[in-house]
This record gives sequence, structure tokens and C-alpha cells, in this order.
Amino acid sequence: MFDLKTYLQTRREWFEKQLTSMIDRPMLGSGRLVSAMKYSLVSGGKRLRPVLCFAASEALGGDIELCIPTACALEMIHTYSLIHDDLPAMDNDELRRGKPTCHIAFDEATAILAGDALLTLAFQVLASDPYALKEPGLILRTIEIIARAAGDQGMIEGQMRDMESEGKSLDRIGLENIHHLKTGAIIRASVTTGALLAGAEDEEFEALDRYASHIGLAFQVADDILNVTGDPALMGKATGTDVSLNKATYPSLLGLEQSIEFARECVESALSELARFDERADPLRAIATYIVERKR
Amino acid sequence: MFDLKTYLQTRREWFEKQLTSMIDRPMLGSGRLVSAMKYSLVSGGKRLRPVLCFAASEALGGDIELCIPTACALEMIHTYSLIHDDLPAMDNDELRRGKPTCHIAFDEATAILAGDALLTLAFQVLASDPYALKEPGLILRTIEIIARAAGDQGMIEGQMRDMESEGKSLDRIGLENIHHLKTGAIIRASVTTGALLAGAEDEEFEALDRYASHIGLAFQVADDILNVTGDPALMGKATGTDVSLNKATYPSLLGLEQSIEFARECVESALSELARFDERADPLRAIATYIVERKR
Repeated sequence: MFDLKTYLQTRREWFEKQLTSMIDRPMLGSGRLVSAMKYSLVSGGKRLRPVLCFAASEALGGDIELCIPTACALEMIHTYSLIHDDLPAMDNDELRRGKPTCHIAFDEATAILAGDALLTLAFQVLASDPYALKEPGLILRTIEIIARAAGDQGMIEGQMRDMESEGKSLDRIGLENIHHLKTGAIIRASVTTGALLAGAEDEEFEALDRYASHIGLAFQVADDILNVTGDPALMGKATGTDVSLNKATYPSLLGLEQSIEFARECVESALSELARFDERADPLRAIATYIVERKR
Repeated sequence: MFDLKTYLQTRREWFEKQLTSMIDRPMLGSGRLVSAMKYSLVSGGKRLRPVLCFAASEALGGDIELCIPTACALEMIHTYSLIHDDLPAMDNDELRRGKPTCHIAFDEATAILAGDALLTLAFQVLASDPYALKEPGLILRTIEIIARAAGDQGMIEGQMRDMESEGKSLDRIGLENIHHLKTGAIIRASVTTGALLAGAEDEEFEALDRYASHIGLAFQVADDILNVTGDPALMGKATGTDVSLNKATYPSLLGLEQSIEFARECVESALSELARFDERADPLRAIATYIVERKR
């Protein structure tokens, strides 16, 4: 029987060691910039994107060591997006994972720059990947996939639309589009880059891409549900905020019961995409289920 | 006799056509994000970094067509840095090149996201460079050089130190370090990536890197001088702002005459690095001289 809890913990701890070594360097100037980058980068989190990258590689029998720079880049991009989304001009959040957000712990200018620097470092880490000496074309494709997912046709457009939708009525298709862009694109990139680095065939790549698209949506629906039913102490952030902000969410559009049902359907669709894979895809299977059953 | 004015205009116009085609795409959502990106990207500017990239390639007999993605990426990164530097939390500037800055023309959140998206698009454009099919390793090195120059050991650290130095006394070495990081790093990357794409030998690469370092500093000294002596109408921005902000500049540390002398010395040092090159380096020579003689 596959033990997801141990798997997640082992992968997360191993990943965090790699991540820290990527950013440990002689500090320039006052070191304020790098301090802010580290503050946000090491402040916990599920490390879902790196773990998905590793698990996708494993599903194809790949060597997860080859995924380290990509996994670090994905987490840096995720972290930068949180820093910028939390800014006063954006979502104006003061707490993240139970700790003051970057612009509260430092200041607004430092938070903007720390985000910019993490985004830039992500691409630096990818471009200086030692594996690139052997497979430069593969690493370039990885960079392209990640940049496309993170940019103005992916995550950033999703955040833009999310903000534009505030105070407006949004239907289910509009909401789904935002999620596909804002969180789905990077989750898909996490899985597909892991697959690519493991030498996926086109059909395997496509199946894993669809898997990722389903779990990305499931993840967001589950997030919406947790904002209604979650325990603030466990989650390290306030709940009930979507309702008080009158935000369009799955529970507000479909009701709570229907949302839970829909999240389960997404997970079923994700699992069916893994039918062609053997037991090496068990981590991916377990992660899909975990996404809707998690408490934070 | 080499005619710099015609050269700069020809290169700039040709470059701007390429740049526009890089960002023309079906607009998603309201198109607000891409509108803001375009607004800042096409709003004039000297296009110094792209032109330096082309001129460095030409100095080695390279094909400047191969520099197009790199030149576009450099200008996108330069533009994003201006958008973020202009933000209220940073320099709080309302006018840039005679037009409202991005956060004034749009809003602060849109400006943050447009900057993020231009930085991301820069790497997307580099990674999807068609030349990469032939020389993936070369394109990866280009990405690494640019990311390193733009990141927490280059431009962003320079902006951080520049802000930290506000209201503090700064000596000449401190000021020079800020300039080397904040503007020098990307100017060096512009020249060295152009050289790299033209197949530079190590010694040529190093000489051009030193050339770029000298003109980068000259450029900044000239900027400080223009802030004292420039014509606001020609420059499209206010002058005298450094004095009123009590900012450390070359004129404030060395006096105006000495600063002009120092800028000329930097140009001389830059020119001496070009001694080994033939007349194909004339554009680089003329640019070095232009940098201290320009009126805006």
C-alpha cells in the first residue's frame, strides 16, 4: 500500500535542501534583497509543484535528480506570484502560511523586488542546469513551457482577470477560465516538465497534461471549499473571506454539496488519465486524491 | 565616415518592427494586461540595449537577424524594470519619456503585473528562439547571462541598494557599485550576448565585456550630468530632481566639470578596448562617443 504522507514528507524535505542550496550565496550590500527572497521561499508551503514534477518523472521511471533545477524554478515562480499577489495594490494580504507576508515583514518596495528577483532566479537556475550540457534542447523546452505557463497567456493573465472580476458577476465558465490560467497553467507545467525530463513519449506527455489539468481544477475547487469549511488554525490563514468579499467561487455558484461532488469528479477524470501507467504512477494517483481530502 | 544618426535610426526602426511582432497576439480577457505591456514597450526610448547587441554582433561580422529574440528580451527586461521602478512604492514617478507612467495610465496592480509579464515574456522569447534548434547550448548561455545580469546579483540588487542609499551619504565607490549593478550589468549583457551569438572568441568576448562596462558607467555619469544641465522638454522628464532629492550623483560628489571629465575618460577606456577590432566595430565606437554627447 502506497504511503502518501511519508512520500510527501520525504520528497518535501529533500527538495527543501536543494532549494536552500540554490539561494545560498555571498550576500551583496545589506543582504536585504536576498533576506526577503529567502524569507518567502523557505516559509513552508506544501511544495506541491515540485512534488508533482518529481512524481511525474517517477511515473515514467525517470531520474528525479534531473528535475531539481526545474522543481526549484517552479517553486520560485510560485513564491514570487504569492509575494506580488499579497501586495497592497493587489489582494492586500498581511498573513500567509501563518506568517506576515513579505511586504509586512520587510516593506512594499523590497517585496516587489524580491518577487522580481525570484522570477529571474528561476530562469537563471534553469539555464545553468548542469544537465543542459547533455540535453540543451530539452532544457530550452522546459524553460519555454514554464515561461508560457507563468506569463501573459497563463498565470499572470489569470491574476489580472481575477482582479477584474471583483465586484462583477461571474458564471461558471468565467470562473473556470480564471482557475485554468491562474493556478492550472503552472500545475500543468510542473507535471509536463517532469514528464519531459523523464523522456515522455507524446502520448504519455498528453495524458499527464490532461491529468494535471483535472487536478489543477480540483485543487482550486477544494481551496474554495476550504475557505468555507476549513479551520483557520490548520490553514494558517483566515477563512470565510470569499463570502465576505462577495467573491465568485464554486460554493457560491454551485452550493457546497455540488462543489464537493464536482471536485470528486475532477479527481476521477484525473485518475482515468493514469490508466495506462503502472504502479510507478501511484504517487500521482495518491496526490490527486489528497488534493480534495486535505485540510489545509 | 560612419553616420551614427542614420545607423541608430535604421536599427531602431527595424528593431521596433520585430518587437511589435513578438507581442502581437490574440488578446485574452479584456486585453488590459497586454495593453499595459504594449503601452510601455512601444513608448519610445533609445533602444540602446538592442542596438548595442546588434552592434556587438556586427563588430565580429555576425548576422544581426540571429540577435532579434535576444534584443527583444533585453528591451522587455529594461521596460519591466522601468515600470516597477516608477511604482509609488519605489521611485513614484508619474512621467516617463513625456508620457504617463504605466501605473498612472492604467493602475498600480496592472503595472505590477505588466512588469512581471514582460520579464516572463523575455525568457519565453529567448527559449522559443528558432535559432535554438541549431544552437541550443548557445541560447541557454544567452539566457543565463541575461538572467544573471537582471537578477539579485545584478540589476535588481542595484535598484535595492539605490533605494537603501536614499538619505544616506554615499562615497564614490558606493555610487559606482550601484551603477555597475543597476544599469551596467544589463548593458554588459547586451554587448556580450551579441558577441556570443556572433561566435566571439574568449578574448573578443572579454574585450567587449570591458568596453560595455566602461560605456555603462559613462552612460550613468552622463545621466547624472543631464539631470543638472539637461533640457526637460528634450528629455521628456523633469531635471534637477537629483539635487532636490539630495541624491548622491557624480556631479554632487565630483562637481560638474570633473564629472564631464570622468565621463570622457570612461569613453576613452571603452574605445581602447576596441583597438583590436576593424572598421566593423565603428558603430560601437560611435555609440561610446554618443553616450556622453547626447542631449536626452
